[in-house]
Amino acid sequence: MAVPVAAGPHRDYYAALAERNLAALWQRNAETSASEPRVTVAPYLWRRADYYEYLLRAAEVVTPERGAERRVVQFVNPALGDRFGTTHTLITGVQLLLPGEVAPSHRHTPAAIRFILQGDGAYTTVEGEKCVMRQHDLILTPNWTWHDHGNESAEPMIWLDGLDVPLVRGALQAAFYQPYPDDRQPVTRPDGASARQFGAGALQPAWGRPTSVASPLFVYRWAQTRQALDALAGVDASPHDDVYLEYTHPHTGGHVMPTLGCYAQMLRPGVETRAHRHTSSAVYYVVAGEGSTTIGEERFDWARGDVLALPPWTWHAHANRSTREPALLFSLSDQPVYEALGLYREEAAA
Amino acid sequence: MAVPVAAGPHRDYYAALAERNLAALWQRNAETSASEPRVTVAPYLWRRADYYEYLLRAAEVVTPERGAERRVVQFVNPALGDRFGTTHTLITGVQLLLPGEVAPSHRHTPAAIRFILQGDGAYTTVEGEKCVMRQHDLILTPNWTWHDHGNESAEPMIWLDGLDVPLVRGALQAAFYQPYPDDRQPVTRPDGASARQFGAGALQPAWGRPTSVASPLFVYRWAQTRQALDALAGVDASPHDDVYLEYTHPHTGGHVMPTLGCYAQMLRPGVETRAHRHTSSAVYYVVAGEGSTTIGEERFDWARGDVLALPPWTWHAHANRSTREPALLFSLSDQPVYEALGLYREEAAA
Amino acid sequence: MAVPVAAGPHRDYYAALAERNLAALWQRNAETSASEPRVTVAPYLWRRADYYEYLLRAAEVVTPERGAERRVVQFVNPALGDRFGTTHTLITGVQLLLPGEVAPSHRHTPAAIRFILQGDGAYTTVEGEKCVMRQHDLILTPNWTWHDHGNESAEPMIWLDGLDVPLVRGALQAAFYQPYPDDRQPVTRPDGASARQFGAGALQPAWGRPTSVASPLFVYRWAQTRQALDALAGVDASPHDDVYLEYTHPHTGGHVMPTLGCYAQMLRPGVETRAHRHTSSAVYYVVAGEGSTTIGEERFDWARGDVLALPPWTWHAHANRSTREPALLFSLSDQPVYEALGLYREEAAA
Amino acid sequence: MAVPVAAGPHRDYYAALAERNLAALWQRNAETSASEPRVTVAPYLWRRADYYEYLLRAAEVVTPERGAERRVVQFVNPALGDRFGTTHTLITGVQLLLPGEVAPSHRHTPAAIRFILQGDGAYTTVEGEKCVMRQHDLILTPNWTWHDHGNESAEPMIWLDGLDVPLVRGALQAAFYQPYPDDRQPVTRPDGASARQFGAGALQPAWGRPTSVASPLFVYRWAQTRQALDALAGVDASPHDDVYLEYTHPHTGGHVMPTLGCYAQMLRPGVETRAHRHTSSAVYYVVAGEGSTTIGEERFDWARGDVLALPPWTWHAHANRSTREPALLFSLSDQPVYEALGLYREEAAA
Repeated sequence: MAVPVAAGPHRDYYAALAERNLAALWQRNAETSASEPRVTVAPYLWRRADYYEYLLRAAEVVTPERGAERRVVQFVNPALGDRFGTTHTLITGVQLLLPGEVAPSHRHTPAAIRFILQGDGAYTTVEGEKCVMRQHDLILTPNWTWHDHGNESAEPMIWLDGLDVPLVRGALQAAFYQPYPDDRQPVTRPDGASARQFGAGALQPAWGRPTSVASPLFVYRWAQTRQALDALAGVDASPHDDVYLEYTHPHTGGHVMPTLGCYAQMLRPGVETRAHRHTSSAVYYVVAGEGSTTIGEERFDWARGDVLALPPWTWHAHANRSTREPALLFSLSDQPVYEALGLYREEAAA
Repeated sequence: MAVPVAAGPHRDYYAALAERNLAALWQRNAETSASEPRVTVAPYLWRRADYYEYLLRAAEVVTPERGAERRVVQFVNPALGDRFGTTHTLITGVQLLLPGEVAPSHRHTPAAIRFILQGDGAYTTVEGEKCVMRQHDLILTPNWTWHDHGNESAEPMIWLDGLDVPLVRGALQAAFYQPYPDDRQPVTRPDGASARQFGAGALQPAWGRPTSVASPLFVYRWAQTRQALDALAGVDASPHDDVYLEYTHPHTGGHVMPTLGCYAQMLRPGVETRAHRHTSSAVYYVVAGEGSTTIGEERFDWARGDVLALPPWTWHAHANRSTREPALLFSLSDQPVYEALGLYREEAAA
Repeated sequence: MAVPVAAGPHRDYYAALAERNLAALWQRNAETSASEPRVTVAPYLWRRADYYEYLLRAAEVVTPERGAERRVVQFVNPALGDRFGTTHTLITGVQLLLPGEVAPSHRHTPAAIRFILQGDGAYTTVEGEKCVMRQHDLILTPNWTWHDHGNESAEPMIWLDGLDVPLVRGALQAAFYQPYPDDRQPVTRPDGASARQFGAGALQPAWGRPTSVASPLFVYRWAQTRQALDALAGVDASPHDDVYLEYTHPHTGGHVMPTLGCYAQMLRPGVETRAHRHTSSAVYYVVAGEGSTTIGEERFDWARGDVLALPPWTWHAHANRSTREPALLFSLSDQPVYEALGLYREEAAA
Repeated sequence: MAVPVAAGPHRDYYAALAERNLAALWQRNAETSASEPRVTVAPYLWRRADYYEYLLRAAEVVTPERGAERRVVQFVNPALGDRFGTTHTLITGVQLLLPGEVAPSHRHTPAAIRFILQGDGAYTTVEGEKCVMRQHDLILTPNWTWHDHGNESAEPMIWLDGLDVPLVRGALQAAFYQPYPDDRQPVTRPDGASARQFGAGALQPAWGRPTSVASPLFVYRWAQTRQALDALAGVDASPHDDVYLEYTHPHTGGHVMPTLGCYAQMLRPGVETRAHRHTSSAVYYVVAGEGSTTIGEERFDWARGDVLALPPWTWHAHANRSTREPALLFSLSDQPVYEALGLYREEAAA
């Protein structure tokens, strides 16, 4: 029983409450009347050098047998303790799949994204569709979709995994999991079918479009994303995030999944953004370039391959330190959750 | 007063009704209890040879002065009489703009689309954005958006105009019109800004997206459309329309405008579709290839440049007569109207 | 072929166009560039004395046999000619059902409402639910719902019928009709089931709510409506319509049907509203009181039982001529159509 | 740093990970591959006798000064530990306001509901509107709405408070709070204005309806709720919850708030419902009658005034032990959260 019994004039009263699983709200005033959120997520930067070697060594530690389903090294926010996440809602990690290996098929209610870091030609099969992975592609495996990974190429495949596990399993106690009877689900659709069917942007099949909550487009190719960043750069930019695109659900224009938002961002050469803060948290992966993000009072200098955790409701601003090359970031955010629940707030620095 | 007074036993009674602007429903039973719509739109094919010469000759008839704002030859359904339209809700025509000419700026509540037939390098300015026209691009000028056309190229520019005038002006009496004070509105945005901002498909600006009812993307480039048709052809096709894409609103996935839907369609070599009918009507333009559409009992053989009117609730099926080349169709439909009002019905032939 | 061939310098050219079912847009400039809608609907008032006697006499003219399904005297706008409606989108009439009679069961895509004028205890059966009619209740028979009327009471039953026939049959050519095999459909649900299930306002069944486009609540009782008018009168009023309530779809808060809006309105004693105009049209029925509505330049003085047609885009203002009694109006409008199609406009007088 | 370092063959490797705030997913397999949620909420019943006396005694413990803003005794789930809630997302309690007292005005992002248990004539002022409290009324104070309570009656006022604090403050770190400069906010609207404006169910103001995410109706009167339960009982019932109504947002038909759903329920005499389970959790308050709820293996017998916590994803069924009197329950649920995030699941017992 978690209710504390304070020493003092009404000790017996409070003890009696505690025995009955009751608590006195008036004893929690400091907590109740805090004007802003008490944030328990730390800003944190994992450099590529911090994790890359250990991911490769994981190949020796984890032999590719069924018991160890996924060879993933996770980024654990040092401030979260038992809540175990990269932020309070998001968990990210890097996964390694060696040539010839298969990460067996399963499905779960936590939603996941993969952002491909290295290699070319492995695949994820999602709901019967084999999606070939190329560098910096985004692959979605929404809530309760069957998925398995296989590496038929000759080189190791590495990607960033991002999930809403701390929210879905931890906070909401809604994690369901099911293994597929076989290591691989059958491939029932043409390779890359969803991209060919729904990946042409504003041109969509005129009949029988699915009405799924999550995006029916499982792969977003980097080549298109890179082009889109350049196109947008010519006409508009956000003061806080510079050239900032969201991967959207092609049939609703909304977030790709109800709990996760995915973004590609270009900081043009020399750009310094204005600080802002919002109730959502995020995890960034540096695709290219060198820059820095100031979070609260602390400045984090980053380069290609680094991973950065942004806590909720914390001032932050980005800078591209190069005056010649753009810096490119991929990020994952819980903003859809805050919007859906009427809790999204954003404030620009004065 | 339109109420007919029938001869017969109650002639005085009916005459008294008519004097008071009253009518007897029971005298209209045949009309009231018809099981299916009485369609007053004829299927009709305008061959390119029928209209092209007259459009060119319009250059001599209409000198480019303010009084004659638009040099358009319209396709008039022979069955509609006073209702004046290509179908009962749609009016289409071909417009000619000579080198150096300007079609002055105005706006109106009828919504319009342009599908570019010939020429390269003229432009439409829509809400301050200059959209360069290339062959087979689609350009939107939604309800109440300022727009003017100019031809700075060295060749005549010809496009297909499509509007919802018969619905908006005729049926709903809701046509508003306003000329711009000058021939040209000022250009306030970069050339092709909307395509660069919103034209990257599922990649959309992550902040401040507009919430317009009509698509904020004013140009849909043919190169992308053509690619999308090929991509879709590899994975799916409709039994009634074969490879059939809708141009969509990038922020909602819905129709480009509340009254008009736009479609690009590929009939693969040798394809013959299964007949169906729907309450919506459409106008087709043949982009490439040779084929035929059977509407009711009549077969219409078409080729590049032809225009075809499809009446509502009429059986129709398409065939590509070539076994080697795809046939490509652009079409304009009033389907969004029927959907919005709960009146869309579709039936497949047995 | 409707295209006129003007006499003049290019007569041959225009004649050639006409032969090919082509027309020259530039010859229609006056029509095309009219700044506001050309309204062909007249404001018109039918006094109770004008129609009531003829409705009763219809009992002699129409004997209750199958051939004459509905004994309805319709209000025909004198300005509409062949388009036949009370306004360009709405047709209203009064229907008489004598004791013991049945108006046989059928369904159609035009949507209908009934507003009960006189009698107590007849019924409409809608989709298997018998709805007892009491004075000033509103009963809905949405698009394609089976409905029949029966009078098991000892007195004649009279109600106002309102439908979207001019829109659905005339403008959109989408009228379907089907007779039920028997005069009466079977009653499969408890009497007034929809009101008991969905009629408690903000309290709705917590499971399995239907997701119909039209309201699943078939009856709106006048007692509740009258109370709601009084309640609203204490806190708010519209400058243009005074105390003005819409009957809504209980599961969406939207219009009761996609094509028809229904409204109850109280003009408090002595109230004179400010003029406005909107693109939608309406038909009013005077439930109680005496007042006047000025439409354009003309003033229409009305009293209980009168019916008034309001054209689209026409200035109008209401006045209650009594300083002691409220005036109560029921009205039917096509506003949902204009909203759905992005064509609703409203303007307040200066 | 929360990552455990397992003893074993790769101890150095795991230690190196931990130093770098990295973790090995494969060491958490048991947690990751649990087929169903691990629920840490206990079912629990607080009898009226358990809490009522302590609430009254709180009057002596908490003198009504500013420092102790709310005299609330909270129901604390014994299984939740530090997470402190009645369930993992909901916190409920009972609040006492003595004659003459004021609970000062403030606002916060956690949303709250009040269900009135005892007294008549105190009030909550919400956004300038004074809402008089009567027994078993529901009063809403949505996210970030100013609210204060005052007791101008001669008797103590007691109500049930329900909030989403464990979700908003705990899980999402999004709790904002602001005190009003004075104890009472000014009353700017007529008493009960929102009920008079928006409380007439399907009859809603026809102009200028607000578009708030939360219900603009701040009070739902018990008299209407009680009537609605009787009306529904005559036509339909859920196999799992018997006669079960949701308080809805009058302009959307949706939940009253994005994070909280409110329900009134009647178990008819003798009814025993079929068990089901769902991912959402709930807290019940017994308004009248005697019955029992079996949760998992345990049966909880309840009577008027008792409070019951239902954990997520736990089988439960209700029974009314009386064969003559209905049992009435009010409940609060987090179902809107699960629905919005695509995580709502429900399963009926075989």
